Amino acid sequence: MSKTRTLRESLQSAPITRLMGAHSPLSAKLGEEAGFEAIWASGLEISASRGVPDANILSMSECLDAAATLAAEVDIPVLADCDSGFGGVGNVVHMVRSYESRGVAGVCIEDKQFPKMNSFVGAGQELAPIGDFAAKITAAVEAKRDPDFVVVARIEALIAGFGMDEALRRAEVYERAGADALLIHSKKSTSDEVYGFRERYEGVLPVVVVPTMYPQVTTRELEEHGISAVIYANQALRSSISAMRQVLTQIAVSGSTFGVEDGISPVKEVFALQQLDKLLKLQKRHEELSAHYSDS
Amino acid sequence: MSKTRTLRESLQSAPITRLMGAHSPLSAKLGEEAGFEAIWASGLEISASRGVPDANILSMSECLDAAATLAAEVDIPVLADCDSGFGGVGNVVHMVRSYESRGVAGVCIEDKQFPKMNSFVGAGQELAPIGDFAAKITAAVEAKRDPDFVVVARIEALIAGFGMDEALRRAEVYERAGADALLIHSKKSTSDEVYGFRERYEGVLPVVVVPTMYPQVTTRELEEHGISAVIYANQALRSSISAMRQVLTQIAVSGSTFGVEDGISPVKEVFALQQLDKLLKLQKRHEELSAHYSDS
Amino acid sequence: MSKTRTLRESLQSAPITRLMGAHSPLSAKLGEEAGFEAIWASGLEISASRGVPDANILSMSECLDAAATLAAEVDIPVLADCDSGFGGVGNVVHMVRSYESRGVAGVCIEDKQFPKMNSFVGAGQELAPIGDFAAKITAAVEAKRDPDFVVVARIEALIAGFGMDEALRRAEVYERAGADALLIHSKKSTSDEVYGFRERYEGVLPVVVVPTMYPQVTTRELEEHGISAVIYANQALRSSISAMRQVLTQIAVSGSTFGVEDGISPVKEVFALQQLDKLLKLQKRHEELSAHYSDS
Amino acid sequence: MSKTRTLRESLQSAPITRLMGAHSPLSAKLGEEAGFEAIWASGLEISASRGVPDANILSMSECLDAAATLAAEVDIPVLADCDSGFGGVGNVVHMVRSYESRGVAGVCIEDKQFPKMNSFVGAGQELAPIGDFAAKITAAVEAKRDPDFVVVARIEALIAGFGMDEALRRAEVYERAGADALLIHSKKSTSDEVYGFRERYEGVLPVVVVPTMYPQVTTRELEEHGISAVIYANQALRSSISAMRQVLTQIAVSGSTFGVEDGISPVKEVFALQQLDKLLKLQKRHEELSAHYSDS
Repeated sequence: MSKTRTLRESLQSAPITRLMGAHSPLSAKLGEEAGFEAIWASGLEISASRGVPDANILSMSECLDAAATLAAEVDIPVLADCDSGFGGVGNVVHMVRSYESRGVAGVCIEDKQFPKMNSFVGAGQELAPIGDFAAKITAAVEAKRDPDFVVVARIEALIAGFGMDEALRRAEVYERAGADALLIHSKKSTSDEVYGFRERYEGVLPVVVVPTMYPQVTTRELEEHGISAVIYANQALRSSISAMRQVLTQIAVSGSTFGVEDGISPVKEVFALQQLDKLLKLQKRHEELSAHYSDS
Repeated sequence: MSKTRTLRESLQSAPITRLMGAHSPLSAKLGEEAGFEAIWASGLEISASRGVPDANILSMSECLDAAATLAAEVDIPVLADCDSGFGGVGNVVHMVRSYESRGVAGVCIEDKQFPKMNSFVGAGQELAPIGDFAAKITAAVEAKRDPDFVVVARIEALIAGFGMDEALRRAEVYERAGADALLIHSKKSTSDEVYGFRERYEGVLPVVVVPTMYPQVTTRELEEHGISAVIYANQALRSSISAMRQVLTQIAVSGSTFGVEDGISPVKEVFALQQLDKLLKLQKRHEELSAHYSDS
Repeated sequence: MSKTRTLRESLQSAPITRLMGAHSPLSAKLGEEAGFEAIWASGLEISASRGVPDANILSMSECLDAAATLAAEVDIPVLADCDSGFGGVGNVVHMVRSYESRGVAGVCIEDKQFPKMNSFVGAGQELAPIGDFAAKITAAVEAKRDPDFVVVARIEALIAGFGMDEALRRAEVYERAGADALLIHSKKSTSDEVYGFRERYEGVLPVVVVPTMYPQVTTRELEEHGISAVIYANQALRSSISAMRQVLTQIAVSGSTFGVEDGISPVKEVFALQQLDKLLKLQKRHEELSAHYSDS
Repeated sequence: MSKTRTLRESLQSAPITRLMGAHSPLSAKLGEEAGFEAIWASGLEISASRGVPDANILSMSECLDAAATLAAEVDIPVLADCDSGFGGVGNVVHMVRSYESRGVAGVCIEDKQFPKMNSFVGAGQELAPIGDFAAKITAAVEAKRDPDFVVVARIEALIAGFGMDEALRRAEVYERAGADALLIHSKKSTSDEVYGFRERYEGVLPVVVVPTMYPQVTTRELEEHGISAVIYANQALRSSISAMRQVLTQIAVSGSTFGVEDGISPVKEVFALQQLDKLLKLQKRHEELSAHYSDS
């Protein structure tokens, strides 16, 4: 089954789909290894790993490269965080074709203006007009070649302070515009807001949430409340920051790596993640074949 | 002072220079923050973060992009791990010009054949002929435009099992060929081998070591034995792997990120590393200036 | 003298500066060879060579790569066509830093909305508010590290149908905002409009024109009318299209390349443009040095 | 039908397949427009357009980007010139997977050492050992996922002066190793050499030629001599060089573009090649849909 189909069906059927955020092929592999159903090519993770704000400082082609590179190294599907679509309708169409042709299983676009600002920053949360964004969804859907490629519409009405009615109005219009799923984003410290949305939303699309600000919620609770997918959008990056910061400081202070050796992955685990064994086997076989063909 | 000059002078004078390995702008920033004097754009880290073996699977331009991107985000100099120089003498010259023009302070090339294999892998350690490699060093030195740009010659004779006499012979020839520093690599479990090299080496070049396999050694001991620089080549990556693996597994098992929240960097630390405050300040000033110019 | 200084001084002093548009290192080399003072990394040429509309379909990083790649292969300065600045003020600052660090001598930004549309297309010519664009110029100027890096402000008021008074008002404000030069764009079939602008403009900035639509004008006439620089923005690309189209058709029709051989550059001219001789000399010297060091 | 299947079947059946060399999406479009059956992503053209020698100065990832970018803009299949495979067997496998996943229909690798030198340069034509290269072909064939993806083995024995017997010996071994087609390269001034090869070659693979040095030959003659495909490898680039050189000189000398206008493609032809009409139509429809969804 294609990765696009896998993602589509996973979103549409029980149980809940868990997506783990990643910023590199390595972190994506670790998400796959931990058992998640899909990878979220996270805008926050990717921009932070590059050292720039999550505010469209990285260009579409840089985000595409990051997402495509990690998609190539995992067997599970990748849903790409595509911010507000990188510009006008021409950019959205170019984006969909580019991501689809590079092996990404779906894109998520949010109804904010370009350049966007990360949703957890107080300032700069400007909503796109509903019609403009809905028409972009239609353009995205019509641009794809693989019918299973997934287009997720992310609603920022709650983030931007426009309230539940506006969020629901947008949900309804985006569904009509052709979205395959809705991501309802909230920065409340409990899940009440997204549960409220789910309860009042009368459409048939899968609903996706990102519980960064309400981490106490469990996968099971989300599922019981009718949520179809949950994105753990930035924990991989955040765990790498705290670990690197602690270990690098310890090396600097102690003047040695001895004290950190037991707490960090040994070199042979790095080799395993690089699939060194496959390369060595390939080289061995190459030598044998080389000898075989030389004698002929 | 330019970054090239900073790196050059740091290698040539006491105290010992400590280089922290990095694979991304973010990890480079954390190395800078922890107080290291320079960053090592590590071939192992960069290839592993991309999920491929450390065996020249990544191309020169991919390594260059990785090194240049991280060099742009730190104020300390970056020394780039350039494997065996990515091919013939034409590739070495193109490499030097490319790295220099992209803001990297120096390159390190090792006397192995292309494609190389990571030095800690048993197989595939083929040494380049001494003359061929020395001539590449001369080509590298003659190709640079900034006289302070640093060319480090890495000696793999001990790794490849050719012994100390060969290592010393190569050191002497590489020095004559114009190298700015020598990296003597060893996979022994103690520092005896590199100390032995340092003792017997009669030239004037700074000597650099990578104590991955003899982590018990301290910066102070290395300095007392006449070592000019130490590269902690892969601990940042390795700490990120163990942390991500543990955290991702815990999220998968517990069905929630709640239990990991206390151990990972909060979102606001991510924002700080992205220098979000600078962007917000810039945007605020832009609004004021916009209003000012509109009224005029 | 640095390329930034060369471009700056050339714009500020007589005689008129002639910039030839390019889309590749090769076409830039041909512009340099023909004697032009600088290269224009043309948005129209670069997007067309990539097969996409000149409407910000290519991202900033793709435009940057194109401009930086050609800048690296010529000794004359390169001024990059940066459309409307690729987004908000954060994008403008990131753009200036990126272009400057990649060896481009200056950028030109136009006062249109993002995404822009090529100026010769009837539709889609939306002007940016004067204050917003002026504040971006200030941000661009404050972002550069090399004081000689050039920031050109391109006025699209005539293109967008807002008339001469608006063009002049914008010229005055952009000058106050810190622009180093003004590009006054016109799609009239004679040079009267740009001469009218030049006559009425009372500031001190160099004025740049792009006579695509009024090709009968000569460099000398422009100079006599006080124009400081002229950009031949797309003729290199357009000549390559007509030539390739004719030659490829002839090969297809005749079933042979024999008939086209006399009209196209011989392979040895291609080799010369690639500077093959330098590489062969380098390889020869490498062999000699290799032998020399091997004997030692 | 997939592009890989189209290329495969075209090579295997009459009439002769004509491939036009290209260096950019634009030149590939012109090749498609002229009626050629496929595009050759030419190493000489791509390196020359970048201003560097055709000697593996460009990296695999740069060649891949060039080939993939042009493949995305044409409907006919693209065969990529992959030099000698960019390194060892690990590089060959990585190359095949990368090109295949980026929409290229096939790769051609030649039996020379890495880094290679353009075949028309006298010096530097070092053949790879037959066993080593044959084993790389097997690795390439086993690495592909789409069975229709085409692997062409290019024989350089005649170029390197090893004679016809060696060329035929290699043909036989490469066929056994799994190649889908053979490219027999010759720098003789007549087609006698490649005809001689075709006559004596007893296998079943399609034979491909590149008549750069024997341009008087016609497609029909090649077909009558049993040649399955002909690559016009560099005429697009060479015609663009002569045209740009002539036009740029004329502009410089005359001080005006007026005299060249009639000989070069008008701007509206550039717009047509960029498919501007599609974007304008998309934008118009977007406005209508925007209004529609806003009212809802």
